[in-house]
Amino acid sequence: MWVSAIKQKPLYAPEESSSDIPFNFNGYGAAGNVMGPLVYAHYGSEEDFAFLANAGVNISGTIVLARYGQSFRANIAQRAEEQGALGLLLFSDPADYAPAGPDFVYPHSYFMPPSAAPLGTTKLVDGDPLTPFYPATESAFRIPEEEAPIPKIPVQPISYSDAFDLLSELSGAAAPQTWQGDLNITYHLGPAFREAEWSVNLEVNNYNTMTTTYNVIGVLQGREEPDRYVMLGNHLDSWLFGAVDPSSGTAAMLELSRVFLQLYNETGWRPRRSLVFCGWGAEEYGMVGSVEWTEQFAKQLSNRAVAYLNVDMAIEGNYTLRTKSAPILTEAVYQSARRIPNPNPEEVAAGRTTVYDTWAHRRPDPVQPDFPLMQLIGSGSDYKGLQHNIGVPCMDTRYTHDDKTLGEPMYHTLYETFALVDEIYDRGFKYHSAVTALWGDLAVKLAESKILPFSLHIYADYISKAQKNIEEIYGQIISSQNISLEFFADAAVNFNKAVTSFDKVLNGLDQNNPLAVRRVNDQLMLVERSFIDPQGLPGRSDYNHVITAPSKNNAYGGTAFAGLVDTLTAINEASKNDKKPLWRIFAQHLAAVTHFLNTAAKVLSDDLW
Amino acid sequence: MWVSAIKQKPLYAPEESSSDIPFNFNGYGAAGNVMGPLVYAHYGSEEDFAFLANAGVNISGTIVLARYGQSFRANIAQRAEEQGALGLLLFSDPADYAPAGPDFVYPHSYFMPPSAAPLGTTKLVDGDPLTPFYPATESAFRIPEEEAPIPKIPVQPISYSDAFDLLSELSGAAAPQTWQGDLNITYHLGPAFREAEWSVNLEVNNYNTMTTTYNVIGVLQGREEPDRYVMLGNHLDSWLFGAVDPSSGTAAMLELSRVFLQLYNETGWRPRRSLVFCGWGAEEYGMVGSVEWTEQFAKQLSNRAVAYLNVDMAIEGNYTLRTKSAPILTEAVYQSARRIPNPNPEEVAAGRTTVYDTWAHRRPDPVQPDFPLMQLIGSGSDYKGLQHNIGVPCMDTRYTHDDKTLGEPMYHTLYETFALVDEIYDRGFKYHSAVTALWGDLAVKLAESKILPFSLHIYADYISKAQKNIEEIYGQIISSQNISLEFFADAAVNFNKAVTSFDKVLNGLDQNNPLAVRRVNDQLMLVERSFIDPQGLPGRSDYNHVITAPSKNNAYGGTAFAGLVDTLTAINEASKNDKKPLWRIFAQHLAAVTHFLNTAAKVLSDDLW
Repeated sequence: MWVSAIKQKPLYAPEESSSDIPFNFNGYGAAGNVMGPLVYAHYGSEEDFAFLANAGVNISGTIVLARYGQSFRANIAQRAEEQGALGLLLFSDPADYAPAGPDFVYPHSYFMPPSAAPLGTTKLVDGDPLTPFYPATESAFRIPEEEAPIPKIPVQPISYSDAFDLLSELSGAAAPQTWQGDLNITYHLGPAFREAEWSVNLEVNNYNTMTTTYNVIGVLQGREEPDRYVMLGNHLDSWLFGAVDPSSGTAAMLELSRVFLQLYNETGWRPRRSLVFCGWGAEEYGMVGSVEWTEQFAKQLSNRAVAYLNVDMAIEGNYTLRTKSAPILTEAVYQSARRIPNPNPEEVAAGRTTVYDTWAHRRPDPVQPDFPLMQLIGSGSDYKGLQHNIGVPCMDTRYTHDDKTLGEPMYHTLYETFALVDEIYDRGFKYHSAVTALWGDLAVKLAESKILPFSLHIYADYISKAQKNIEEIYGQIISSQNISLEFFADAAVNFNKAVTSFDKVLNGLDQNNPLAVRRVNDQLMLVERSFIDPQGLPGRSDYNHVITAPSKNNAYGGTAFAGLVDTLTAINEASKNDKKPLWRIFAQHLAAVTHFLNTAAKVLSDDLW
Repeated sequence: MWVSAIKQKPLYAPEESSSDIPFNFNGYGAAGNVMGPLVYAHYGSEEDFAFLANAGVNISGTIVLARYGQSFRANIAQRAEEQGALGLLLFSDPADYAPAGPDFVYPHSYFMPPSAAPLGTTKLVDGDPLTPFYPATESAFRIPEEEAPIPKIPVQPISYSDAFDLLSELSGAAAPQTWQGDLNITYHLGPAFREAEWSVNLEVNNYNTMTTTYNVIGVLQGREEPDRYVMLGNHLDSWLFGAVDPSSGTAAMLELSRVFLQLYNETGWRPRRSLVFCGWGAEEYGMVGSVEWTEQFAKQLSNRAVAYLNVDMAIEGNYTLRTKSAPILTEAVYQSARRIPNPNPEEVAAGRTTVYDTWAHRRPDPVQPDFPLMQLIGSGSDYKGLQHNIGVPCMDTRYTHDDKTLGEPMYHTLYETFALVDEIYDRGFKYHSAVTALWGDLAVKLAESKILPFSLHIYADYISKAQKNIEEIYGQIISSQNISLEFFADAAVNFNKAVTSFDKVLNGLDQNNPLAVRRVNDQLMLVERSFIDPQGLPGRSDYNHVITAPSKNNAYGGTAFAGLVDTLTAINEASKNDKKPLWRIFAQHLAAVTHFLNTAAKVLSDDLW
């Protein structure tokens, strides 16, 4: 009997040998002891499972082996469970996480060593799974645990060393070329092994327990508008040492709060608006602290929060900035990035003196190559509730790798150590420092500017493009259903026009009239709120933002108008009989999106009549 | 064959003979031609139908004859339909609408003559029935008409003259004493007539049509806070002449807008905040104009509306004021009422010089007899969307009858003529004038006061009493389910404490700091918003206010914590097996109510930490 590793092997840093290191596990995976044949399911995407079905590989009654790297693991678990799998094993293929070969892995590089197994949550819905929509306070009503949106099957992360042992013995048809990874074998689909009597026995001893998590909130109250909050946040928990996720961000956060406190102590300085520093609990279990807090204070935050700036990790590389945001913050982020000196001497020598310059050079926007790529904010960190449930514009920034590297290779593994950060990623902590400075600069800009530095034109352009995209790609099939896209197009135009008219309002504004200034700022704040549909997106009551919600099938990514695009995707995949109700959902959501775009246009005017 | 009247007979005013008068009908009642035995169902309440069931009277396949006066007619229709009735006839019994006897009816008095038949809507859900949750704009998605929440059975109003003819011939057991009315016969339950072969043939030729209604919105923009709206409203449509409903209110509205315009034209005066004058379309079809408008501008109204003051009818009598409001407006209404001279010379002679004095004397609060009765705002007019869906504090006021008279006897009949108002109710229009003055005074107070005149202490007391009521009446049965009422009680205490602390904030406030003033006003505005549950009340997605929602079974009345009380009522009535899921709903809603009470406490402080 071959047995997989239950812990990750110490390789370099002394703390890796600590007796406190837990067994490898996935949060919220069910306990269980199951036995069955193995099936290799590539990245476990919808397409991957569809391919297996077409190839005649029945998932039911098997244990699925899937790769990290494309889908959020909770989505993979959900799909495996829906297909009738008994259990799920997750591994990280060296093709994705150690592409430079076996010599260039931790501790010699930031790539993943064979013994690494990333932990992580498998819960799909964010926040406390027992208190949907309401805060998990002492007085909360809790649904029975068996109704919680967590896997019913055991899910377990394994190393690629262990995956190699399993895949080497797998039988069945060879996996297609695109499914092959960098383990030095031919990957087969299964089910079953080359030795007919072999099977996989997956034993998971997870247990669920009710425990308390804490958010730590600090505030520097604003001098003129204490009831307007510019929020900064990072989470406090990690799977193992978490030197990158989240401690690189936590270091930045602590440094910023130290700096602002010192400034206040020495000079009495307070920003115009309040700065709120948020240390979130239990992010790793699916944004529990931040989502519950957002639910608890939704009324106030909806009324008072200007923006939320998240730094989950300050660095996961040292190549370029990677920033996701609500489009309304784009210009402010650009401006701050242009003010931060470049920590990379080679880049400075090449004439790129700021972090903006390197960002624009190394990661240009494919559509407007003169600008750096600003990604649409998806989900996957503590901005989820604020951006997607109540419409507070959010941003998440970090220094990252080049495009060839997938995420942070050591993410959630034992090897996310201080040594990794200190010796490999950021000798001298120059990149940490740059991200910290960017974060602080942006926070001060948002907290101090008399008129909120919101980029309405960029938002309007973004919306127009996304609207035209939908028209171009899907226009014909939509028209074939006698659904008109005209009102949707008109609404995008209305928003653009309102933005242009608002320029005149701003130009004519008496900036010495505090209530007049407040009025336009309130209008600016209402723009992002306008896109919140209290009814939720189609089939997704936990997402309310009609523009920035991530696509249904991958909680990490951001897709403009995900409710429309996801429904069109579902229509495309549905059988003929199932298409009709989906078209109705599409038409209904299209009308909702149109309404909220018109709302965003209208909030920029003083009147309702 | 006996045939009922299809129109109401002209009695007095020349316009009653107009050829434009439509046939008697109920809005949204289904077209149909049905035949069956008749059943007398008293007021058509839940209890009434339960009594019939116990008495062995099967409703299925019958035509139900029920009395106006206790339940909203749409609720009666829904119950009749659920019981399998083929159709519903509605009449107004003289016991309720002509209690002074046959000589004291229109045109000799304001009581109902035998030929009167009140029209009215039978749609249960407010707003456009085809566009739930979203505004009925041109781009809206409309659900298929067959899914609309309107009766599937024909519903028809008849006069009590016609009801007499039907009831005189009805067989079956005699109705109980409490079910007897003032028609000079013994009322029987049915089914069927004394002549076995007789039956009722109900033919309704209603048709549904898509038509456009208009809201007319006027504004006097505020000089300092144009983005804060004090709203006044009345509806523009009536069933027939509508001299009382709504034209008595419309006269007041037009006079107020004339006065404010003249004041502005002559002096340039503008209030501190904007005054918004709303003339609503299609209120009579179930608040279509106001609810759709509220849905369209929910984001802005939620952010900007201070209060909404509704006068549906200025008068329906001349005995005393009758006012319903969100408790937060109580003190401001009292103050305005104390400033309005009494239009009744006898009352003035008795030392009661203001409308407040007569109100306090003739309709004292049974619990605090020194104060006039302020009723909790229910539904039934254009404040529905604003109060119950987005939490704008609303008020509705009018002059009314003494308690012995039920509503306005001529309500929605042909005889709601100018003569009725001019010759019977309000010679010289003194009561109209008093209501107009009260309305205007209150609007100016809300628009001009630097600090919003919101009565937090009254609200907190109201909540404490309602919370204690639930504890007293239902405490034992709730505890028997191991559901604790402790957090709910604590939350009521928290709100009381927060209100007391807020007094200190107000006392210490620098009223010359416009942003500090704005801050406390925004907090005051957030209190009512705090009680809005975006998830809706249990089983009622169209009501969101956890305190002021009307009870489920009667859309006119206001019941504190209707979501709790209605669920407890349902539990009481449920069979043993059905109680368990209802207790879960109760516990869940109790936790939600507790959360929103705590929210209301918290919005009164500057912080979230």
